[in-house]
Amino acid sequence: MSNAIPAGYKPQTSETLPDYLAIKLPAAIKLGGTPDQWQVTEVGDGNLNMVFIVKGLAKTIVVKQALPWLRAGGEGWPLSLTRAGFEYNALCHEAQFAGHKLVPEVYFYDQEMALFAMEYLTPHVILRKELIAGKKFTNLAYDVGTFIARTLFHTSDIGMPADKKKALTAKFALNHELCKITEDLIFTEPYYPAERNNWTSPQLDADVKKVWNDTQMIQVAMRYKFKFMTEAQALLHGDLHSGSIMVTQSDTKIIDPEFGFMGPMAFDIGNYIGNLLLAFFSRPGWDATAQACEEYQHWLIGQMEETWSVFVTHFRQLWNQKTQGEAWPVEIYQQCPDNDLAHDAREIAQDQFFETLFEDTLVNAGMEMNRRIIGFAGVADFKLIDDADLRAQCERRALAMARELIVNASLFENISSVGQFVLKGKYEY
Amino acid sequence: MSNAIPAGYKPQTSETLPDYLAIKLPAAIKLGGTPDQWQVTEVGDGNLNMVFIVKGLAKTIVVKQALPWLRAGGEGWPLSLTRAGFEYNALCHEAQFAGHKLVPEVYFYDQEMALFAMEYLTPHVILRKELIAGKKFTNLAYDVGTFIARTLFHTSDIGMPADKKKALTAKFALNHELCKITEDLIFTEPYYPAERNNWTSPQLDADVKKVWNDTQMIQVAMRYKFKFMTEAQALLHGDLHSGSIMVTQSDTKIIDPEFGFMGPMAFDIGNYIGNLLLAFFSRPGWDATAQACEEYQHWLIGQMEETWSVFVTHFRQLWNQKTQGEAWPVEIYQQCPDNDLAHDAREIAQDQFFETLFEDTLVNAGMEMNRRIIGFAGVADFKLIDDADLRAQCERRALAMARELIVNASLFENISSVGQFVLKGKYEY
Repeated sequence: MSNAIPAGYKPQTSETLPDYLAIKLPAAIKLGGTPDQWQVTEVGDGNLNMVFIVKGLAKTIVVKQALPWLRAGGEGWPLSLTRAGFEYNALCHEAQFAGHKLVPEVYFYDQEMALFAMEYLTPHVILRKELIAGKKFTNLAYDVGTFIARTLFHTSDIGMPADKKKALTAKFALNHELCKITEDLIFTEPYYPAERNNWTSPQLDADVKKVWNDTQMIQVAMRYKFKFMTEAQALLHGDLHSGSIMVTQSDTKIIDPEFGFMGPMAFDIGNYIGNLLLAFFSRPGWDATAQACEEYQHWLIGQMEETWSVFVTHFRQLWNQKTQGEAWPVEIYQQCPDNDLAHDAREIAQDQFFETLFEDTLVNAGMEMNRRIIGFAGVADFKLIDDADLRAQCERRALAMARELIVNASLFENISSVGQFVLKGKYEY
Repeated sequence: MSNAIPAGYKPQTSETLPDYLAIKLPAAIKLGGTPDQWQVTEVGDGNLNMVFIVKGLAKTIVVKQALPWLRAGGEGWPLSLTRAGFEYNALCHEAQFAGHKLVPEVYFYDQEMALFAMEYLTPHVILRKELIAGKKFTNLAYDVGTFIARTLFHTSDIGMPADKKKALTAKFALNHELCKITEDLIFTEPYYPAERNNWTSPQLDADVKKVWNDTQMIQVAMRYKFKFMTEAQALLHGDLHSGSIMVTQSDTKIIDPEFGFMGPMAFDIGNYIGNLLLAFFSRPGWDATAQACEEYQHWLIGQMEETWSVFVTHFRQLWNQKTQGEAWPVEIYQQCPDNDLAHDAREIAQDQFFETLFEDTLVNAGMEMNRRIIGFAGVADFKLIDDADLRAQCERRALAMARELIVNASLFENISSVGQFVLKGKYEY
């Protein structure tokens, strides 16, 4: 995949798309009616792409096309079209391991046009919107926890043969442009006076300055930047926040893995947990009463705890049943003459693995919180709170918690301790 | 690069090589005389390749060709030819960063023939041979320490731009077959009754069984296997033992990087230190007197300490001068408004980095020692000791030290503590 714009590439519009699809859409996907009867709406609200909903008489699909620049940044921030291919490939791998219950189906991919067509999700709504609205979802923690467990396990050296895993590493190492966005926006810019930073000013000015002078936190942040750049543990979604999840009361779909690459497992889990905590701290801006706020905050903490525990349970189960994957290999842990010893040893190995992963997850959660408050790309949970003083108050508490997670990650015994700590609110920054 | 044998591939022999070279050798490399006057000797004593010395009237060169199987394993252990390309590429990168003072020059590479021609090193001798003979080399520690520092620094995210580093990761992730040899022979087989294991029997039978039941050590070994498989920190040599180094009294050349890939820095350093320690423990099999033994052992410990300290000093210096490389970025550590703070912070970041690296290095050294005594590929330092009882005695002490390094790595304060511990010999297994 080259960074040059392919000769046949042209940005689609609502007008050009039907004729293009009439030629390109696989015969099995029948929209119904003729192209002039298809209604096209451009709905992209993300930063990187054009997203069209194409409604035929019988069926509706979504078409996503990469633009040769970062959309939010305008033409001044060029970005190669290859990311459509990485997203397409990541969606395929995720579907292979987590299934279409959790991942939308892709109908076709056109490399030259940096475009793919996929399942239209209805009546799904972006999770972040629903969290802001204070809605609850019964299956959410189970679905997200199993998605993370399955995609990470099966693309790691624990669950995948070494040669296949290294082929994934090779393929996704080329997604360096999107990795760099993460490296810059999450792991670097919030920690110094970078131009693109964007916080609630002047209310948080002093707090942000404090971050820039917090050598202790910055040292941890930089160690985790290095880990992000070097630990090729599993195929990450790479952007697993509440804006990359669509939900109904009974269904959960994980979308938008264009940041997919082989990285540290803790990044995906930490990203999601960080966003649950951002939602938590934004509640005073959204709930009408203190009681409603407290009640929903408890639900969010429950989500954090359940997602982690579903993840661990599911990952451990896959590990116990594994027949391949050369890390913690079956020769040593499953086929040892003394089976009880092997069983104990495996459990201890897993405990050690999850202990490290837990600490790394907390740090990554804190990093996500910091960057959403200080860095370039904020979250609606805070940004849409109109009262800037109230917003800053919420954000200040989130920053304080983020610091705890980054600097004192090793002091939290388990996910419940984190939940209790957040609920007790005993942190100052 | 594909795993299939290219149509034009054919194993060269001493008879066919001159005619092949007459056509392929770049004009600038003038062997002198006519092809029928060139003397060809096959000298490969490694496991993986054919190595020819081609002596013309004016100049001598070395030609190395990969065979489609692992040489020591015979045709029953197939191995793809692509490794010649990885070795060629690794040699080029190493020369770029460490210079031709430390890395042999390559004249040309023929992908189809899985062959390259390179500088003939004379009067260089393989370091392992010289260590067995009890020879000392003034520049060795400095040369090896700077080689490791330069190649690792400049191919890591600390010293190389992120996109270029990820391109290296992508390229070398495809060297999975040689990685698997390491994963199997170093990180797995010594820790269970694998068929290929090969130890001094029956003398060490009980010791080896102890290793297989040493759950505590095996857990650490498996964590480091995972690190080896996932930590894409820098372009490793991948096989940096005393058999991959050629020396004269004044010159050091690092050869044979066919195991090159993006892995944990501690692996290369640990490998080399592990081999110095193997040499240390083999001395009773080689030295005529206790005094000679002690004296040479002290020299070896000095080599270990100096190599590490040269490495750290040199790596730190490169880091202090860095202008690129997005880990521990200059924006935060060099261009901060308060320069003194930035300087202190950088030093602390480096201290933390080297602390982790040191612990990981010791574990990797221990892993190398174990595998050379228990696993498939032994070392001449021990194997050539004819008296099996004496050999086993040496090996037993090496195993005990290896266990200390693996299980108690974090207890060693610095490299001198390791040296003192080895010299005091207070370890039992």
